[in-house]
Amino acid sequence: MSRGAGETTILSNRIITLTTDFGLKDPYVAEMKAAILQICPEAVLVDITHEIEKFNVQMGAFILSCVVGYFPEGTIHVAVIDPSVGTKRRPIVIETQRSFLVGPDNGVLILASEREGIRNYREIVNRRLTLPKISTTFHGRDIFAPVAAHLAKGTKTTEIGPEINKVARPLFTKVTDRNSAVNGEVLHIDDFGNIITNITEVHISRPDYSDWLEIKLAGRKLKLRLCKTYGGAQKNELLALIGSHGYLEIAVNQGSAVGKLGAKQRDRVSVSPV
Amino acid sequence: MSRGAGETTILSNRIITLTTDFGLKDPYVAEMKAAILQICPEAVLVDITHEIEKFNVQMGAFILSCVVGYFPEGTIHVAVIDPSVGTKRRPIVIETQRSFLVGPDNGVLILASEREGIRNYREIVNRRLTLPKISTTFHGRDIFAPVAAHLAKGTKTTEIGPEINKVARPLFTKVTDRNSAVNGEVLHIDDFGNIITNITEVHISRPDYSDWLEIKLAGRKLKLRLCKTYGGAQKNELLALIGSHGYLEIAVNQGSAVGKLGAKQRDRVSVSPV
Amino acid sequence: MSRGAGETTILSNRIITLTTDFGLKDPYVAEMKAAILQICPEAVLVDITHEIEKFNVQMGAFILSCVVGYFPEGTIHVAVIDPSVGTKRRPIVIETQRSFLVGPDNGVLILASEREGIRNYREIVNRRLTLPKISTTFHGRDIFAPVAAHLAKGTKTTEIGPEINKVARPLFTKVTDRNSAVNGEVLHIDDFGNIITNITEVHISRPDYSDWLEIKLAGRKLKLRLCKTYGGAQKNELLALIGSHGYLEIAVNQGSAVGKLGAKQRDRVSVSPV
Repeated sequence: MSRGAGETTILSNRIITLTTDFGLKDPYVAEMKAAILQICPEAVLVDITHEIEKFNVQMGAFILSCVVGYFPEGTIHVAVIDPSVGTKRRPIVIETQRSFLVGPDNGVLILASEREGIRNYREIVNRRLTLPKISTTFHGRDIFAPVAAHLAKGTKTTEIGPEINKVARPLFTKVTDRNSAVNGEVLHIDDFGNIITNITEVHISRPDYSDWLEIKLAGRKLKLRLCKTYGGAQKNELLALIGSHGYLEIAVNQGSAVGKLGAKQRDRVSVSPV
Repeated sequence: MSRGAGETTILSNRIITLTTDFGLKDPYVAEMKAAILQICPEAVLVDITHEIEKFNVQMGAFILSCVVGYFPEGTIHVAVIDPSVGTKRRPIVIETQRSFLVGPDNGVLILASEREGIRNYREIVNRRLTLPKISTTFHGRDIFAPVAAHLAKGTKTTEIGPEINKVARPLFTKVTDRNSAVNGEVLHIDDFGNIITNITEVHISRPDYSDWLEIKLAGRKLKLRLCKTYGGAQKNELLALIGSHGYLEIAVNQGSAVGKLGAKQRDRVSVSPV
Repeated sequence: MSRGAGETTILSNRIITLTTDFGLKDPYVAEMKAAILQICPEAVLVDITHEIEKFNVQMGAFILSCVVGYFPEGTIHVAVIDPSVGTKRRPIVIETQRSFLVGPDNGVLILASEREGIRNYREIVNRRLTLPKISTTFHGRDIFAPVAAHLAKGTKTTEIGPEINKVARPLFTKVTDRNSAVNGEVLHIDDFGNIITNITEVHISRPDYSDWLEIKLAGRKLKLRLCKTYGGAQKNELLALIGSHGYLEIAVNQGSAVGKLGAKQRDRVSVSPV
């Protein structure tokens, strides 16, 4: 079978993931799932998280970027952190080498899309792919979930709407290497209290870095051992390590680093050799 | 194939939803899912929420009523907010035009059932449809989950037990229109802090209502603009809007209305034209 | 078809359960699910809980032991409460009469395994069953999830690694019967605030026990009625009952026992006849 220009060549696998800031006590997440199952009863639904901090597009973008690479090819990722729902911000689908991403054009999809290899962006305009009635306050249910369900059923991306050239990006500080220090920021504080930075293994693999790092964070200057495991430090002791996504993190063995240090997302971090 | 009187004519679709006040840290929700999968391994399980406030039958009834209409026909909804488990309150199944609802006879199922179009109520008496041993404290696992699983497998509702005429109703204040004000109550505070009332678009669509509303709530008198979107107000500013379920809600653009106003469920609300 | 010694004779049913202390806001749980679906797209994933108290192996062991018996034969249970990830603690699979358990060798699997009837323990050594790259900090994603997925696809346990003889056990106080009192400890405080002890119905079924119990807990001496249901006491009144897992628990009708009594996990409990 021949395929027209712009048509997808990756197979849909029926997995649809959901990432939102909705929390779990309200009906909102279930309404999205219902809207999906109404259209594609064979969909396999996987929650990434619904505990993104309210309106925190950066956090949503980061979490989604961590997980996409572990899913099979053809997975459809829906992310709804959408403070501007109902305004002029566009609903979009990003097609990548491995996957589809569906959500508002506010940057929440972009980090994950870049990791997956962006093919194209499309604005969602086809009203046959949404719920018949679109509310002004809940596009997760009325637009994004139904579009994802149609993609899972095999709808071609060309039917979604026209290609667009430019999409929004969330603000992240780039890592810089200046004055013999690597400067970055706190990407995320995880539920264990680990402080995850945007500094990666590559940034600190120069020969002058040893097993010990000087880390400036939240007004403190720390000298921390770069360990291989949390158990590489004493219980309740601070340590540095490269976490499971390749980012430098500050942790406490069997404890909470944020509890000791009080850092928060977007705080600046500076790392230099000891 | 002919069908006897009272037999269901809607097809089961294998979707079973769960709504409870169990929280997520305990084994209870998983035990319900296990009991379902033991009987019907093909069941598709969807969590509505397990964060209903403990013993709050009204909140459970409201949340369930929001979601049922989005699910496909034939969906089976199990709701277990059950402060009187093991006492004389009856276990019931409500058959509607579109779905089945399974739970205790304390009102938790009734709002959703009315939205779906009630066909009949039945008391669960058939012990072949429950777990062999029924505890006095966990009918979610021992009665409601197994009955739902049997329905998903195609068991006819006539096998469940006898029809009954009357079921319990949760207490909700009716909306009244008096002294040129519409009076209702707070149905729900959502996780964003939006204050959702039981006043609907219909109540405030009279010609004397304009884009501005006077709202009395929690001892305050507010003059709020009726917006189409959260973004219709300035950031951190209060607004009113008709939410995605058709109810009037008081919200803050990118913030929490309950944080500003301190209202709670069941508080009285009064709305009049400005 | 003949089977070699040590090969499993129970059928895999594609259900994989997950129990962790990861919480729900981070990408970690979704990464485990992605790793499973990548290998076994037909897997049916069931969350037990991800709200185990951080690093609390005993709590994980208890919760898992409650649920396993309700799942169908052949279910694969993955539990990752793993404070020593990346150190010398072994990754293991326990094969039982009814199920498979996958996780770290720190005791988190052992109570559930004993309930299911242990057949053998194996250390996970086969690198073809893990992700190609194994991090030092996240074996849930890199080892345990993939091994579970391979088991769900039918991989024989003999391929996992060699049998081992001894595994770690979490510390639990044994129940003793001394000085005409039964002595145990608090196993778990559930989300309702029920205080669940390790004392079972058998311990207090001697003839000298009546409907009333004297219970010493957290520095208090209580005289509580042993009820059949929470509704057997007045609203907000303390009571004792045998909960849905056969353990003696102290509860409050439509309220929180831990809110009234302030007990915590591992507190000693003593029960004697009145």
